[in-house]
Amino acid sequence: MIPGKTLEHAPTSHPSSGTNDPTAHKDDHDKVPRFMIDEKVSPPPGEVHRWQREHVAHKDDQPKDGYPLNVIIDPAMRVMYKSVHEQGLTNVFDRFTEQEKLRCKFCVEGLSCQLCANGPCRISGKVQRGVCGVDAHVMVARNFMYRHVTIGTAANVYHCHQAARTLKAAAQHPESGLKIREPEKLKHWASLAGLDTNKNTNDLAVDFANWVIADICRPHYEPSQTTEAFAPSRRKELWKKLDLFPGGANAEVAMAQTMCMTNLNADPIYFLLKAVRLGIANEYQGLLMLDILQEILMGTQKPIVRQQNMGLLKKEMVNIITNGHMPLLAHLIVERASSDEWQQKARAAGADGIQVLGHVCEGQQMINYDGVHEQKAYGGQEGEWLSEEYLFATGAVDLWTFDYNCTIPTLPLYAKRYGVKMLSVDPVIRMPDTDMLDFRPEIMAQQADKALEMALEAFKKRKAENREIHIPPYVSEKCMVGFSTESVKAALGGSFKPLIDQIVQGNIRGIATIVGCTTARYGQGGSNIFKITQGLIKNNVLVLSGGCTSSVMEYTGLTDPAAAAEAGPGLRKVCESLGIPPVLSFGACVDIGKMTLTAKELADALDIDTNQLPLVIGAPEYLEQKAVADACTAIALGWVVHVAPVPSITGSDVVVKTLTETTATLGLGKVVVELDAEKTVQIYLDEIEVKRKALGLSSTQMH
Amino acid sequence: MIPGKTLEHAPTSHPSSGTNDPTAHKDDHDKVPRFMIDEKVSPPPGEVHRWQREHVAHKDDQPKDGYPLNVIIDPAMRVMYKSVHEQGLTNVFDRFTEQEKLRCKFCVEGLSCQLCANGPCRISGKVQRGVCGVDAHVMVARNFMYRHVTIGTAANVYHCHQAARTLKAAAQHPESGLKIREPEKLKHWASLAGLDTNKNTNDLAVDFANWVIADICRPHYEPSQTTEAFAPSRRKELWKKLDLFPGGANAEVAMAQTMCMTNLNADPIYFLLKAVRLGIANEYQGLLMLDILQEILMGTQKPIVRQQNMGLLKKEMVNIITNGHMPLLAHLIVERASSDEWQQKARAAGADGIQVLGHVCEGQQMINYDGVHEQKAYGGQEGEWLSEEYLFATGAVDLWTFDYNCTIPTLPLYAKRYGVKMLSVDPVIRMPDTDMLDFRPEIMAQQADKALEMALEAFKKRKAENREIHIPPYVSEKCMVGFSTESVKAALGGSFKPLIDQIVQGNIRGIATIVGCTTARYGQGGSNIFKITQGLIKNNVLVLSGGCTSSVMEYTGLTDPAAAAEAGPGLRKVCESLGIPPVLSFGACVDIGKMTLTAKELADALDIDTNQLPLVIGAPEYLEQKAVADACTAIALGWVVHVAPVPSITGSDVVVKTLTETTATLGLGKVVVELDAEKTVQIYLDEIEVKRKALGLSSTQMH
Repeated sequence: MIPGKTLEHAPTSHPSSGTNDPTAHKDDHDKVPRFMIDEKVSPPPGEVHRWQREHVAHKDDQPKDGYPLNVIIDPAMRVMYKSVHEQGLTNVFDRFTEQEKLRCKFCVEGLSCQLCANGPCRISGKVQRGVCGVDAHVMVARNFMYRHVTIGTAANVYHCHQAARTLKAAAQHPESGLKIREPEKLKHWASLAGLDTNKNTNDLAVDFANWVIADICRPHYEPSQTTEAFAPSRRKELWKKLDLFPGGANAEVAMAQTMCMTNLNADPIYFLLKAVRLGIANEYQGLLMLDILQEILMGTQKPIVRQQNMGLLKKEMVNIITNGHMPLLAHLIVERASSDEWQQKARAAGADGIQVLGHVCEGQQMINYDGVHEQKAYGGQEGEWLSEEYLFATGAVDLWTFDYNCTIPTLPLYAKRYGVKMLSVDPVIRMPDTDMLDFRPEIMAQQADKALEMALEAFKKRKAENREIHIPPYVSEKCMVGFSTESVKAALGGSFKPLIDQIVQGNIRGIATIVGCTTARYGQGGSNIFKITQGLIKNNVLVLSGGCTSSVMEYTGLTDPAAAAEAGPGLRKVCESLGIPPVLSFGACVDIGKMTLTAKELADALDIDTNQLPLVIGAPEYLEQKAVADACTAIALGWVVHVAPVPSITGSDVVVKTLTETTATLGLGKVVVELDAEKTVQIYLDEIEVKRKALGLSSTQMH
Repeated sequence: MIPGKTLEHAPTSHPSSGTNDPTAHKDDHDKVPRFMIDEKVSPPPGEVHRWQREHVAHKDDQPKDGYPLNVIIDPAMRVMYKSVHEQGLTNVFDRFTEQEKLRCKFCVEGLSCQLCANGPCRISGKVQRGVCGVDAHVMVARNFMYRHVTIGTAANVYHCHQAARTLKAAAQHPESGLKIREPEKLKHWASLAGLDTNKNTNDLAVDFANWVIADICRPHYEPSQTTEAFAPSRRKELWKKLDLFPGGANAEVAMAQTMCMTNLNADPIYFLLKAVRLGIANEYQGLLMLDILQEILMGTQKPIVRQQNMGLLKKEMVNIITNGHMPLLAHLIVERASSDEWQQKARAAGADGIQVLGHVCEGQQMINYDGVHEQKAYGGQEGEWLSEEYLFATGAVDLWTFDYNCTIPTLPLYAKRYGVKMLSVDPVIRMPDTDMLDFRPEIMAQQADKALEMALEAFKKRKAENREIHIPPYVSEKCMVGFSTESVKAALGGSFKPLIDQIVQGNIRGIATIVGCTTARYGQGGSNIFKITQGLIKNNVLVLSGGCTSSVMEYTGLTDPAAAAEAGPGLRKVCESLGIPPVLSFGACVDIGKMTLTAKELADALDIDTNQLPLVIGAPEYLEQKAVADACTAIALGWVVHVAPVPSITGSDVVVKTLTETTATLGLGKVVVELDAEKTVQIYLDEIEVKRKALGLSSTQMH
């Protein structure tokens, strides 16, 4: 590697501007304003949830005036935003404000193309074709494919592939510290895969991992065996009819990239159907499979109560945050850190102990798995991706480990200023001035120890330098998390029947999965997720969450069983009788595979196709490419997917119509775009009632 | 498939503008001006080459004034451009003029990002980061990766994969019409691959094809066996040291796409080194391998003299043009069309016969293979990609078959207006209102017959409608083509020694491979390729060409052995004694694999590493993503690669410096960007002299 010095910026000539890099200010360290709770912008710690409910109640939270505080509903982020902003450090909300002034309308609509050397080209009302002759429809559809769908699919499949390698290492290398915690689950899925399940657990694990890897690596013209084995039968028929049944995921990604060559495919509809095909690979060679693999290794989640937010950081502890999407090394770090040996080492280093908090989706998985592991060193969930710079600015983070994805590019600058040690744990992600570990699951326990050593060193340095720490005092109420297909079924007494009965009787009108990211946009910053979810539960729709949406649910108290009181009477009664919240966190965005499994089992129990369920999908603050691939999965499975903000496809009416109407006429799902939270809730409710009606269920709302 | 009606545009409100779609004018059919030879813009047919040499001699060909006629040096395209332009039909040169007014400076420099929903973002002097925090360097490097390198690599690898499937079909399905024409070559490469070569040819072909396919499908962490078997030893060591040795190409592409996720990799250098790694996969799982596979099927090229240009079209013949990059179905179409049966059918349809012309790179391969096949129905090479709309506008094309890539999106509109039947022959490429064949090599002969039937139907319709035909009278001088590693060696008497001797003595200073596309840019349109090549041969540099550059060499007469008279004295003497031109066409852009093989054999004969050869690579009018991937291949092999126009990387000095300087310090090659033809020639000459000096060869130029 060439040393990555490239992110080092010299101090700029505008030290007082609000957008400079932190390193530009390192000499001003002692001028950093102390953070404080200002009641105008943040509530007193005890009143967080009441305040959040009042704060986002008004439509006028959404205008630019007052941005970003009018959309940030996490009190910890509010107080840290103020601190970071007032120090003039570059941060995500301020950068959004700046970029808003610089936006290009062509890019916003998908009408710019930078693929070839005759370009870049733009399409306007007067100039309807690029140099090669491409029109708006092909340009928009092709941009959608190579900028979003192939990247997102590749990323989920890569994750699945690494998880399969980890399962193999667990079977073959006891010294890895990895365990096969769910041999029965392994047997179940291996049996569905048609493998010989009479082997011992380790041999079967190797066979199953190899079978998954072989499917990912299959050529594009050989039908995917994971899809054949695990997808709903009626869907498979439809996909075959529409030529959507995928081959190997890597080959599908490469073929779709090939189609995006200049002067190659010029059929916009073909691009979009290929995107749906990738959505299927994204599920059966990505999301679903990686969830199963991780559960085999880490155990099946159980409902448990934990907490979230920056207030969990402890000044006198070694604070490790693990970030990303695959908590396999992270769970070993927690396990090792929980040992007396490591706690002892921490005390020898002058700390009260070591704690490991999860961040973003890796954190959502860790909080969900903690019911299985009950590890002493586990410290809870930190937050969503938008909070990263503000979190580093607390000065309390000693080590940040990260795999793919959601570690933002400015963190090395914050790390330098605030003494955070950063450690990449997968070869897809490198950052200048950060350490890295190769992905070597066979020596994961050693790697975990190495990470812990780094954390201790960083803590000692923090202490030696006597650095100032500002931990906002906010910690969430009780978060009941740990939901999955099995744990929901268990909560229902072992079968989905009670849930189906409630749906049939109309006490629960239907299910909405509110998944994906948070964005920095006006009207969002977490508030769109919160408002929509509030609206849905009030109307007796059970909500499943996954991704940074789960963080929002957690810091706003919606995963607290007490939130049942905010639900409509039907849902409230069900929640109260089961002792569960109206929002069931399935964990991470990559846990969508668990949600689709739950949906499949519900559909099977009802003997209907997945697209007949009174189920809607929402990504009310989607951010990146995996979310787009996941939306393609939902379309393949026949569901209505609400997304906001507006995707960059509006430059082509053909593309818009295909994704928002035509696909549904083929038996697939469709996309709905809506920015207003109230209208969004109504769209969800209407769709659920349409599905209820088609199933012959009562169509009268209870209130 | 949903019918692709989407490219049908309504007549615009500016029917007199020069850029409307042809369909907007269909009622003006009888107003089409007759094409004519205007001596101000095109020379009389007999004087083409003299005129071209005079025409491009002046620097003032390059300003915008007089564009595009001041850069188009193909006389057939000039006359057809005039016709198309005066009819007000949309066409590539006029679209370029329009887009020039609409360009976005951010996109030109690589400083816009459209990956996520917080964007699109742009980086300017004042606003140095996107919303996520990405800076110019990461943005530019990431754009380079996912817009160019992964797409280009995927496309070459896909081609190789399809070629391997075709070899399998040839071995397993005699009814396919495919033949294994080079069993000895198969044995040679299978033996290098470590396969058991004692099997019969068909079984060995299946083994070899499976071996190639398995390599393409290999996971990213298993070293590529094709690379291990075929790459130069010293290069392999370097690549391993630098962590550039690739795994399976599909997995490498998918992993590189994964790295392009928002908030994932933020090390610009890591992106660029990954691009070089993809360049290695692009060669050994793409270019080289596909060339070997195709030669096994179609035979090894032999030097032969043929002709090029639109004047080869014949009004009274059924004219079939096959376009793309993989001439496997095309060569069966030629073979079938050459049969008495099909010529008879053509006469029964009222034609004088059937002829098949090749276009773009597929055509360059067909003209190069015709020395082996000597097929009656083969009609010669048509032209380069820029000529497609002008070619259709002759009205003389009956069938256009096309695989990947270089069939431009407006052709269906021209096809409709001018009665061309379009037939896609691979599932990666679809166009509205065109027919398609699945890729099924096992029934290729049947598919060839189907294509011929379509052509006859189209011809009959053309005749029945008595459509006007305008065939420009230009046909190239003699084109001596059919060069390859073997045929060059054969021309030299069976070994590279005579060539090496000439290089050592300084009669030939070195070798330049002038490859890639043509572009519509000011100062290009074919003229940049021509000028640079003229300058090189005058200075005793032997030129190898491949791609649309070969078309330029052909229509300007540089592949005529008579062009030796234009070379410097040393090169002239060598060419005249061997009876070869100073420009040796290796065929298509995908025949770069043959050039790298020639270079490897030269380096082996000298016992030096490939980067020590007095060899430069140029893509003076590169257009698309495969060209970028090929440039990465050249960097991996240690060569200096000149490219023009300027790639969209200028927004980052780090990226520019890495690709134009740093890579060379690692023992890799580097990129040189230069737009002026004279300066470019000097850069090539200087580089060659540097390499000569390092080898201890005479450094004095002969004149």
